[in-house]
Formats: sequence, structure tokens, C-alpha cells
Amino acid sequence: MAEKKVKNITSRDQDFGAWYTDVVKEADLIDYSSVKGSMIIRPYGYAIWENMVNVLDNMFKETGHVNVQMPLFIPESLFNIEKDHVEGFAPEVAVVTEGGNEKLEEKMIIRPTSEVLFCDHYKKIINSYRDLPLLYNQWCTIVRWEKETRPFLRSREILWQEGHTMHATEEEAREETLRMFKIYETFQKEYLAIPVITGKKTEKEKFAGAEETYTIEAMMYNGIALQNGTSHYFGQKFSKAFGIEFLDKENKLVNPYQTSWGVSTRMIGGLIMTHSDDFGLVLPPKIAPTKVAVIPIGNDERLDLFIETIKEDLKDLNITYTIMDLDKSPGYKFAEAEVKGYPIRVEVGNRDLQAGVVTLVRRDTLEKITVNMNEVIPHIQELLDLIQDDMYNRALQRRDAMIYQVDTIEELRSSYDDPGFFLVNWCGSEKCENSIREEFGLKSRCIKDDVTDKKCIVCNSDSKHSIYFGKQY
Amino acid sequence: MAEKKVKNITSRDQDFGAWYTDVVKEADLIDYSSVKGSMIIRPYGYAIWENMVNVLDNMFKETGHVNVQMPLFIPESLFNIEKDHVEGFAPEVAVVTEGGNEKLEEKMIIRPTSEVLFCDHYKKIINSYRDLPLLYNQWCTIVRWEKETRPFLRSREILWQEGHTMHATEEEAREETLRMFKIYETFQKEYLAIPVITGKKTEKEKFAGAEETYTIEAMMYNGIALQNGTSHYFGQKFSKAFGIEFLDKENKLVNPYQTSWGVSTRMIGGLIMTHSDDFGLVLPPKIAPTKVAVIPIGNDERLDLFIETIKEDLKDLNITYTIMDLDKSPGYKFAEAEVKGYPIRVEVGNRDLQAGVVTLVRRDTLEKITVNMNEVIPHIQELLDLIQDDMYNRALQRRDAMIYQVDTIEELRSSYDDPGFFLVNWCGSEKCENSIREEFGLKSRCIKDDVTDKKCIVCNSDSKHSIYFGKQY
Repeated sequence: MAEKKVKNITSRDQDFGAWYTDVVKEADLIDYSSVKGSMIIRPYGYAIWENMVNVLDNMFKETGHVNVQMPLFIPESLFNIEKDHVEGFAPEVAVVTEGGNEKLEEKMIIRPTSEVLFCDHYKKIINSYRDLPLLYNQWCTIVRWEKETRPFLRSREILWQEGHTMHATEEEAREETLRMFKIYETFQKEYLAIPVITGKKTEKEKFAGAEETYTIEAMMYNGIALQNGTSHYFGQKFSKAFGIEFLDKENKLVNPYQTSWGVSTRMIGGLIMTHSDDFGLVLPPKIAPTKVAVIPIGNDERLDLFIETIKEDLKDLNITYTIMDLDKSPGYKFAEAEVKGYPIRVEVGNRDLQAGVVTLVRRDTLEKITVNMNEVIPHIQELLDLIQDDMYNRALQRRDAMIYQVDTIEELRSSYDDPGFFLVNWCGSEKCENSIREEFGLKSRCIKDDVTDKKCIVCNSDSKHSIYFGKQY
Repeated sequence: MAEKKVKNITSRDQDFGAWYTDVVKEADLIDYSSVKGSMIIRPYGYAIWENMVNVLDNMFKETGHVNVQMPLFIPESLFNIEKDHVEGFAPEVAVVTEGGNEKLEEKMIIRPTSEVLFCDHYKKIINSYRDLPLLYNQWCTIVRWEKETRPFLRSREILWQEGHTMHATEEEAREETLRMFKIYETFQKEYLAIPVITGKKTEKEKFAGAEETYTIEAMMYNGIALQNGTSHYFGQKFSKAFGIEFLDKENKLVNPYQTSWGVSTRMIGGLIMTHSDDFGLVLPPKIAPTKVAVIPIGNDERLDLFIETIKEDLKDLNITYTIMDLDKSPGYKFAEAEVKGYPIRVEVGNRDLQAGVVTLVRRDTLEKITVNMNEVIPHIQELLDLIQDDMYNRALQRRDAMIYQVDTIEELRSSYDDPGFFLVNWCGSEKCENSIREEFGLKSRCIKDDVTDKKCIVCNSDSKHSIYFGKQY
């Protein structure tokens, strides 16, 4: 039997949007601030981000990347160098016009992304093929002046990482684009337990200034898409615009080939909307800041001793834990452990110990498991792995059940409002892509395959690709 | 014999300022950018910062602190709440006046420090004594619109951490102020090998809005002071201004007591100006991103085998290393290892191995030590500890030799231009403090002791304190 719900959380099936913001607030992940469009990431939310950063940073370093720190500001003249890029970002930048009590001679744009800053630096440090590749990454805050904001999903300030690399050959840069894309996929599957659909964006949806954009598309519980990471191949577009050149092995001047790739705190939003429920957060063990919550019920010497032993054992195994011994009712503590999404709750009272047993509660299923008190630790270890796997598999099954192959425009017309993704055959024209967007409010997610033996569902000419469409955050 | 200097570094004794910027550039720590007053922290410089962050973050967490993320912006009305604070920071803020192609209704100040943002949040989350203490820290970028900038020392953008805590009692807040101050001192002594003078700032020099400021003052090689960290006690000043209240155990409404404390990338500047020399950077082993540089001279199978073995051994011991096998002359590699400040250089050639020996070179002294090839690893381990200790002790001796007890104004008049700190007796008045500043260009560093049985060197009335004066960065 599930515990009584004492937190103030709207039902997920009743109002998904309200449910999401309730979970975010009740789990103490964020607070709103007096700064419109900016949120405060509270300790528990930030601890999730720190875990993500640590894992990803290791993955980046193991693949040869190093961290740097670029300026926060972009002088307007620098920002304006690459035309497509400017066009894409100009409508949503924040601009500093005063500094040190004076009006600035040149306006400063707060970085919405840092391609131009990296290029400006690369121009100075790249001279020879020996200087390449440059595999740089930056963890920082960017600013995009959004009109409508939502915690973690759309915010004026975003904590993220942006990788920026330069290569001597097109082949190498393309490999890098895919390598990092693959790292994002692995991270989201293995750590966040989020199944993702991966593929290339259409011309219309690609990043401003990129030649190609690869995207990680996750489907939320309600069937809506979350773009949860992108990797871009720029070719020589920026390196030509910025005049970056190197002498190759044959002593010829060449423009290097570029990539960039990024993920952000948006992944926390994806984590919530994939796994959480009406009792609050559900976190996969591998990314949960606290893996085990131990709740003593009552107190006596024997119980104290048991708690001390389990603490030592968990510490030795590097399993993070919290002992919930605050002066509150067991019901309060159960609800608190649930809203925080601690993967396993250990309930233990005097009577349990007399009987030689302890109760483990899985947060993902709320299933209760009675185990011998001497076997708590191996059970916890096993259960953590099991929860991680089960969470992924459940999300995968749900996702797959909400992907619909749609062969005609009529089929789409009768089903487009169903939650999920629609896989359609498409001729590759922006006109047909726009037409689906306008009629059904669906945006292309990414290209699945080349499919040339079918017809485009819009114009009925030969198809080029099989492509996912869906509503998006 | 020291290696030939191949890098372009001005002599430290000839022109300290030029030497400093040469070291910073030649060691690839930073690059200048097209953004006036902002620097690019390059991978090697950022790796030093990452090491500092990791150690400090652990020290903060071990003392119960948690990380959060506050907004980058402060609405002007929020910024203006605490008067002393505004007065201190208003002249050097950067202001966002446009966002999303529109003029903003309210100007947004980019945080120069975040006391007001934390207070705005605390007002919402502090209700009862059970909510206290709140021990928060934030790693972030702040902006202060400085007119003159210098890499790491004075910059428009600063990477730092700012701790902000709230407590139920004055006693507890005062303890916290000193605890964190002590952590900074320990970190700088034990990791950076920088001896520091610690004490309270005068009323004139304290942080804008604080009741008391404690400072960590380091003396650079040239005798000039670097304020290298501060910890502030605010009392109830901000909590009253912001209307933050909690119900104490007796059910009475009370304003909590506050602290804040911070250190920044400025510590990298302090590291350089304390230890480095005409050959480049000298880094203490505990903070050096790369502790050992192995330089193979020539190549044959036996040498390759030796290199493989030493790599494995260093990896097993978690001693970071680089194998400098690039296609350059040994002289070039020696100079490169020196400018980068790798604490130990291992030089090994075919003939050395035939003789069964290897040469270790200490970066701090450039001393060469020939050791048995089978004892390289224990020698390296021992040497790393020794270098760390020796660097601290040398810096301490130099610092102590440049502190002068000055008993009369005449003595100060004849010596004020000597490099170093002057310890004087002082009546405690701002008038006398200002007089020393104006006549000699010396600013008070911090109060050493209470000294009441002497006379103020300026006004000759009874002294209150013994206090350090010095020139500063």
C-alpha cells in the first residue's frame, strides 16, 4: 500500500504542467526569485547538477578534452561577424550598455553561446597543423532573454557546458561531432535512465550557423519532446568568417573544421518529466545525490546500534545516505523521502529488529521488501542496480508505445493530438515540413533513416527520409 | 647549472610587472581577448583553478556547507535595499538595460557579489530556528567594472566562490566567520605554500555593509600585499534591511545573523607572485596540475620500456605526469618544463640507463639529483613533499624579513618605500590611518594585536592596536 500523500502535488494525469512545477518546488529543487525569468537552484537541485557535471566532465576528459573559461561578454562587433549565427540569436540577447557609471562606447552582449568568443581566441592560437586538434570545453552560465520561462526547461539564465573544437580535416571534425553526441546518448541512457532518439535535425531546425546539427530527443511522460542535448558540425563556416588559418603538412594555408556541443540543466527537467510521479521526485540511483534514506522508527539501544552499523557499511561502500532521525512522525518522513526521490528507503523499528527483519521500500515502484537484518547491505546494492535498470526499461517501453508510424496525411490528421512522436515519410522539403507544423502544431524532431521507396505524406512525391515529428518543450 | 632561458620572460628583479605578465602569458595560463578587461583562462590556467576548486569545495562540504546557484542579475530596486552595500559597489557595476530587443522596465545589475540575492531568498525560506543554520556556498562569475585590469589580480569578470550563511545566534555566526577564515588560511599555507598574515580589517577597509571583515594578506615577492580572501560578519544588518525573521525556541521573532566569505582566481596571481622566477612558473606540488614531466632523451627499446614502467608507477600512485616526447630538442623541452612549473622533471637517456641512473630536476631550486633507476619513484614521492615544504619555508622567511616594526613616524618616513609591510602602533582613528595612506601611499592591511601601552605613531595619543601597513595590488 502506498503511503499517504502529504505533499502538495497536483496529479500528474490531471494537469501535467502544474504537477511538474509542484514537484520541482516540493522537492526543494528550485525557488523563484525577484529576478524575472531566473530561478534559484537550491542545494538539492544543485547536488543533482553537480553529479551530472562530475560524470560528464570525466567522460569529456577521458576523450581528451580540456576545460577553459571564456569571457561572459561579447562585444557587438564580434557578435555580428557570422551572419546566420547573429540572425538566430539577436532576438533573445541581453545587452550591457552601462559600466562603471558610464555609457559604454560599444554594447556588450551577454553570451547566449560562445562560438564567436572561441573563434576569436582560435584565430590567435592556431598557426600550424601541430596546434590541432583543439578540444576545448567550458562550464558556464549563458543568457537567453526568453519571454516565457519554466524551471530547468526554459530560463533566461542557463547553466551548461559548451564544447568547442577545431580540427585539421573535415573527417576528424565529423567524427568528433558524432563522438560527443554518442557520449550524451550514453550518459542519458546509463546515468539518467532516459531513453533517447538520436539523429540529424532538418535544415530548418538546425543550430544558427551550423552545417549540421545532431540532436538527442527524449520523450516525456506526457508524450512531449524535450531536446536534451545537441552536437553541431560547422565545417569551415566560422573559421572562414573569422579568418582562422593554419599551415598544413604541405605548408598550405587551410581553414580548420569546427564542432560545438552542449547540454544543460534542462536535463534535470527531463529527468523529472521522465520518471517522477504524484508522490514527488523519482531519481535513478546513479545520479541521485542521496541513494538511501534510513528511517528509524522509535528508539532503543539495539536500534541505535543497527543504525550505526548500517551507516558505516554504506560509507565504506560509497553509497550516499541520509539518516532521517528528525523529530517528526514516520508518515512525515516517508512522504519526505518520497518527495525527494531517494531510490531506497530503509524502515526499521524496534519490533522489526526483534523479528530480525528490516523493510526496504523502492521509490520507483513503492514496493516493500522485507529482508533479513543481516543481509540489508547486499540487498541494497542489488536493488540499486535493479532500480536503475527497471527505470530505464519502463521509460523505454512507455516511449516506444507512443511512437506511431503514420503513412498518410489522413492518419496523421486523425491522430496528431495523441501524445507521442509520429514517424512519417518525407520528401525533404521545408515546404512539407512547414505544412505539418502549421496544420498540426508538430515540429520535426530528427531524421531517422533514409527512406526512398515511399511517398512524402504531404506532397506525395518520392520520400527521402523517415522523420520524427512531435510537440516540444 | 641552470638551463638556457629560451622563453621570452623579463627579469623579475628588473621589472616585476612585466615579469608577471610575461610568466602568465608564456606559461599559457591566459590570453587576452577582444573583450576589454576580460581574460581568457586557458586550459593550463584553468586546470590550476580546478584543483583549487576541488580542494576548497571538499573543505566546505566537510564543514557542512552545500552549493547553490543564484541568479546572475540583481534588479536595481533589490540592489538598493542596503545603503552601505550600494554605496560600496554602485561605482563599479555593469548594467543590462536591453533584453530580447526591448528596453527593460527595470535595469538589471550583473552581480558584483550576491548578498542581496541570498537575502531575498532567505526571506522566503527562513521561518523557524529549525531552518537554521543555512550554510550555503556558490561557485560563479561576478562582474566589477574595473578601469585598470591585470590578469588574475584585477579583472572585470572574476571566477570565485561566495559563501553566505545565516545563523540563529551572534555567537554561531561569529564562529562561522572565523571558521571559514581559518579554512582559507589552511588552504593557502598547506596547498599554495603561501604564508599569510591574518586579521581584522579597519572600519575604513572593511567590506561594504559588513560589521567586521577578516582578511588573508599575502606578501608578494616584491613586498606588495595581495588581499587573498576575506570573511565577513554582518550581524543583523542585512537581515533587518531585508526583513528576514525567524521564530526562536521561545516563539519570539528574531533577525538571524549573517556571514559571507570568498576567494577567487586572484589566488592564481598570488601563487605566481610568491613562487615563480625568471624561468617561468613554479608551482607547489599539491596544486600543480602536472607534478612530474618525464623527458626521454634519444630513444631505444630499453628507454621505451623504462618510460612505460614509470608511467604505470606514476598512474598507480595518482601522481599526475606528462611524457614530453614531442619532436623537439632536449633544451626546448627543459625550457618548456620550466616555464610550466612542473615540480619535478625526470631526464633520462640511453646512456643514463646503461649507467643505471636517472636525473631528477627540482623546479623550485633547479637542483639536479642523480638517482638509481630502480629508486626513481620513492625519490619522486619524497621530493614532492620536500618541494612543497621548502617552497613554503622560503616564502615565509622572505616574508618575515620584509616585515618592519616601525616605532616613530620618522622611522616610517625614512623606510616607507622599502618593499614589505610596516607594523605600527595606532590609536584606532580613521584620521591617523588616512594620514599614513596619504603621506606614504600605504594602506592598512589588518590589525595584528591589541597594543595599549604604546603611542600612535601619527598622533602620539595612546595606541589601541598594532597594525600592518603596506602597498597593495
